[in-house]
Amino acid sequence: MTQFSKRKKPTLSEYINGIQSGNRILLSRAITLIESTSPKHVKLAQEIISECLKLKSKSRRIGITGAPGVGKSTFIEQLGTQLIEKGHQVAVLAVDPSSQVSKGSILGDKTRMDTLSTNPKAYIRPSPAGTSLGGVARKTRETIILCEAAGYDTILIETVGVGQSETIVHSMVDFFILLLLPGAGDELQGIKRGIVEMADFAIVNKADGDRDPLVKQTVASYRNALHLFQAKSSNWVTKVNACSALENRGIDKVINEIENYFKLINENDFINVNRQNQAKFWFKETLQSLFETQIFENMDIQKRYNLLEQKVLDGKISPFLGAQEVIDFVFKK
Amino acid sequence: MTQFSKRKKPTLSEYINGIQSGNRILLSRAITLIESTSPKHVKLAQEIISECLKLKSKSRRIGITGAPGVGKSTFIEQLGTQLIEKGHQVAVLAVDPSSQVSKGSILGDKTRMDTLSTNPKAYIRPSPAGTSLGGVARKTRETIILCEAAGYDTILIETVGVGQSETIVHSMVDFFILLLLPGAGDELQGIKRGIVEMADFAIVNKADGDRDPLVKQTVASYRNALHLFQAKSSNWVTKVNACSALENRGIDKVINEIENYFKLINENDFINVNRQNQAKFWFKETLQSLFETQIFENMDIQKRYNLLEQKVLDGKISPFLGAQEVIDFVFKK
Repeated sequence: MTQFSKRKKPTLSEYINGIQSGNRILLSRAITLIESTSPKHVKLAQEIISECLKLKSKSRRIGITGAPGVGKSTFIEQLGTQLIEKGHQVAVLAVDPSSQVSKGSILGDKTRMDTLSTNPKAYIRPSPAGTSLGGVARKTRETIILCEAAGYDTILIETVGVGQSETIVHSMVDFFILLLLPGAGDELQGIKRGIVEMADFAIVNKADGDRDPLVKQTVASYRNALHLFQAKSSNWVTKVNACSALENRGIDKVINEIENYFKLINENDFINVNRQNQAKFWFKETLQSLFETQIFENMDIQKRYNLLEQKVLDGKISPFLGAQEVIDFVFKK
Repeated sequence: MTQFSKRKKPTLSEYINGIQSGNRILLSRAITLIESTSPKHVKLAQEIISECLKLKSKSRRIGITGAPGVGKSTFIEQLGTQLIEKGHQVAVLAVDPSSQVSKGSILGDKTRMDTLSTNPKAYIRPSPAGTSLGGVARKTRETIILCEAAGYDTILIETVGVGQSETIVHSMVDFFILLLLPGAGDELQGIKRGIVEMADFAIVNKADGDRDPLVKQTVASYRNALHLFQAKSSNWVTKVNACSALENRGIDKVINEIENYFKLINENDFINVNRQNQAKFWFKETLQSLFETQIFENMDIQKRYNLLEQKVLDGKISPFLGAQEVIDFVFKK
């Protein structure tokens, strides 16, 4: 395996060859390029991504969410380890909006997954920092492409159950797992309806020791509740299971359901339809963010923007009319 | 008061004069124009808004959020009624993202506020429907301007505690109230930290009957918790009170705190600084949404967009590179 010093900058083809041959150091350095804001890095990163896209790997992208304390790390540790035992290669990524403020991040402490993090078939990468959730999302999506090119056929993306991050993760995965704690009534209240609706698989974790009646009751409540939702366009009926990641019980059944799901969506082609819709969505999102960058880079537009912003601030025109004038200026130029 | 039939279309000046003289029918029809997507209606609506902006009313914009079941309607009913008794005119609006899916909406059922809805000094308008939360937000912001022009000096904006709607409402108000249920421990878990941080006033509602110890404990817990947060740029220290909207106890103290807050932010000018920042933010948001409209209205750009989107879908280029090419095309044209 070629070694690159920190100082020597690999070329595009060195990156591509390195990533494809499973060189983790080059993979990590390429991801760091994705996370960079320097225009030179952005350019190289995009070239690497475009090359990696051509490899068209067959992968499974799985999102995992749940409130803090539900045991996401232990669950991912067990799930990842068992998937590797079945012959898979597993990458674990994270989308953590709180890292925008605290600069901390989930997965930052790899020791929380000490079995998985030392497994040569696993690759764990903490959430990128970023000024916006949109930026974090783009970087994570691009990291998925690189990990797939590096041969990881199962991508697990962890997120905490706050704000918009689940929606973002849902828009980049094929399968979406919601982890729950035993204790039905309150749980059903506490978790946002929208997230339960997004879930393909609700798993009551911490079915440990003597909690059996409560676990059964929770599973039953969710099964009942999920009946009320509309059928999914994947034709998949959302499953509700129990497991104990800590005691390593029920994970095999989780893997079975994952197999069933991917069998179904490969047969009915939902996997491709869904990924195409996701790509359309992200294309649009990226366009929006580049448009903003462009406005602030062109002096003439910037001037006009400032002028109209001031008019809006002075209450002379509505934000809508002000924005309309900027648009007219941009498109008439 | 001039009457207009449903068929006769009022002119711009008839709208302005009608709104300013407190004609509720014309106010409602102008808001319906804001909610319309027809270009003719949008144009007229924007002219009305621009005229109304010039009136520069002195108003208080107050956001109210809380989980379903916390008693928002009863609280608003009591707060609104007592504010009117003190000489104010009160408009009640709503931002309800769920109305995008269900087409239902909070405030849709005005009978939930039967005292307030029949009060001639109150104006109640349900959440606009919309395809996006951004669209709903713009319409609500513009509705605020019209209500203020119509003489309503207190604007109460209700939202349910799900997803991004509180953040949206927070970005259009001067003061943000979070309603809570008695029962400290779980409550502190259940409500997203970000929302508690946004609150200027946390009110434990349903301090009814014999719940006194629990209410006191909840208030104390929140007071402790809020100590941990950073000081607000308004220099206001977030208050925690209890009230029973149902039994009409404690609402007078709520009004006192509202008075204290607006006294402070008028003195230190935070009210203007904050509104200017909000206007800047909304200007940018509107620009983004108009940019998207523009792309889909220009045939050349639309063609290029479709071409590049297809390349992205075929995995030939990354969404970033595709979007960059669209931007280059738009800005070089």
